[in-house]
Amino acid sequence: MQIITAIEDMQALSSRLLSEKKNIGLVPTMGALHEGHLGLVRRSKDENDFTVVSIFVNPSQFGPNEDFNEYPRDTEGDLDKLSPCKVDAVFIPGADEMYPEGFSTSINIGNIGTILCGASRPGHFNGVATVVAKLFNIVMPGRAYFGQKDFQQTVVIGKLVRELDFGVDIVVCPTVRGPDGLAMSSRNGYLSDEERKAAPILYKALKFGEELIVSNGIVNAVLIKEEMRKLIHTEPLAAADYVEIVTLGRLEGVEKIELPVAICIAVKIGKTRLIDNIVVEKKQVEDVR
Amino acid sequence: MQIITAIEDMQALSSRLLSEKKNIGLVPTMGALHEGHLGLVRRSKDENDFTVVSIFVNPSQFGPNEDFNEYPRDTEGDLDKLSPCKVDAVFIPGADEMYPEGFSTSINIGNIGTILCGASRPGHFNGVATVVAKLFNIVMPGRAYFGQKDFQQTVVIGKLVRELDFGVDIVVCPTVRGPDGLAMSSRNGYLSDEERKAAPILYKALKFGEELIVSNGIVNAVLIKEEMRKLIHTEPLAAADYVEIVTLGRLEGVEKIELPVAICIAVKIGKTRLIDNIVVEKKQVEDVR
Repeated sequence: MQIITAIEDMQALSSRLLSEKKNIGLVPTMGALHEGHLGLVRRSKDENDFTVVSIFVNPSQFGPNEDFNEYPRDTEGDLDKLSPCKVDAVFIPGADEMYPEGFSTSINIGNIGTILCGASRPGHFNGVATVVAKLFNIVMPGRAYFGQKDFQQTVVIGKLVRELDFGVDIVVCPTVRGPDGLAMSSRNGYLSDEERKAAPILYKALKFGEELIVSNGIVNAVLIKEEMRKLIHTEPLAAADYVEIVTLGRLEGVEKIELPVAICIAVKIGKTRLIDNIVVEKKQVEDVR
Repeated sequence: MQIITAIEDMQALSSRLLSEKKNIGLVPTMGALHEGHLGLVRRSKDENDFTVVSIFVNPSQFGPNEDFNEYPRDTEGDLDKLSPCKVDAVFIPGADEMYPEGFSTSINIGNIGTILCGASRPGHFNGVATVVAKLFNIVMPGRAYFGQKDFQQTVVIGKLVRELDFGVDIVVCPTVRGPDGLAMSSRNGYLSDEERKAAPILYKALKFGEELIVSNGIVNAVLIKEEMRKLIHTEPLAAADYVEIVTLGRLEGVEKIELPVAICIAVKIGKTRLIDNIVVEKKQVEDVR
């Protein structure tokens, strides 16, 4: 497993691989790896000749009052997890390597980056788009792997790829959950024991929303969102940031449910903001009826 | 000479060429080709296996009150000029192909895009950066060719390439001028006969500024700019938009001349805004002394 820290070295390696007609798969991460990340890695290993995992806690996607400094960093532990997966290369650039002094370029992804999580995290998705564009140009993958847990991120990156004509296939992999339904997230490590017990309320609320649509046939999105909020707030440690039901492609809020839709939520558990989502497909309703 | 209009077709061709280890040279243009463009084409032909000329009048780099609608378009004439140069492919996408409905991504290049021409053309360089990033991802060149006449543009694109890690070498070619010094520009076609006679005042002013530095040893940039403005306004049809003396890399205005510097000017000749520039090198002064 090669460890690469310089952009130039990564580009040289990728250029060589491409000239040998090797397919490169990229799994971009911020480290603090969990089973969700490792699922992306295994998928990339299956589908490509060469898998690169990038580890970079990207400052430009954190707001001034967010958890950039506290975000968990454990490079050694990450490498110990990646090595048995037979990852080919790990790209771990420093912040100065990615954003040297005087750096001023940013990609503005438009309105799709200012709704949902973008509303409470201004600039977040522009930071994501900028670093992902850089990683695509550095690693030159044919495929890049993202988890569905960050649903809006996958839509933003899909738009980035289409609109700037990157020749990269975006592969979205299902959210990996604990036995109690809590989606894997590096931020779960912030939770106290008590908060950890409260956190599955996100998934419970999502499944409840799904049930209202699929089993109860409710089409009034406002009603569903209200019921979900009520359920979330039965948990004393939980405070909903947003509960939205949106179209898959453009993340437009719907009033009347027409499947497929995504139910997307952000909930604070204590001081920790967690997100999760679930896609409700037309087929699910047809299967029930 | 292949004519390609679809992004997908261009990407397929470029992918095939790269898999055959061919070097691709890109000459991005807005058409209305002149000898300046053809110089870029010949340089690309010399240095690459395959030369692509793109022709696209990019709406996103024109302001609402600018000359997007009037900008000269002559695809047939352009192709007649490119064919004898043995250009390999011409990429001529439609506006809908480049910016389909709902398009919202833009690249913000930062302060370097808001000074000089950017001050009177807000958003111009972000539009340039966005379309050039798209063209790089579509054509996948190893080298791209730009004229020095658009000096700030070459600096903006250099920054775009460095900061988003595009693997493209930017080749800047000398400004091509008429016998009277007027820099070749598609916008010269806007000039009436009388205005055409007035237009060489730009180059005269630049050469005068250069002379003040090189021969007269003047180091006070304010003084030089004042003298240049005076010379420009000896021409009744001319009105200076800006006259600036800047560093080459960051385009920072200098007070005291320390070579090398670029002298950059924008002048309205009647209703037509023309730009030009000259780089004054340290060597020039040493040669004189």
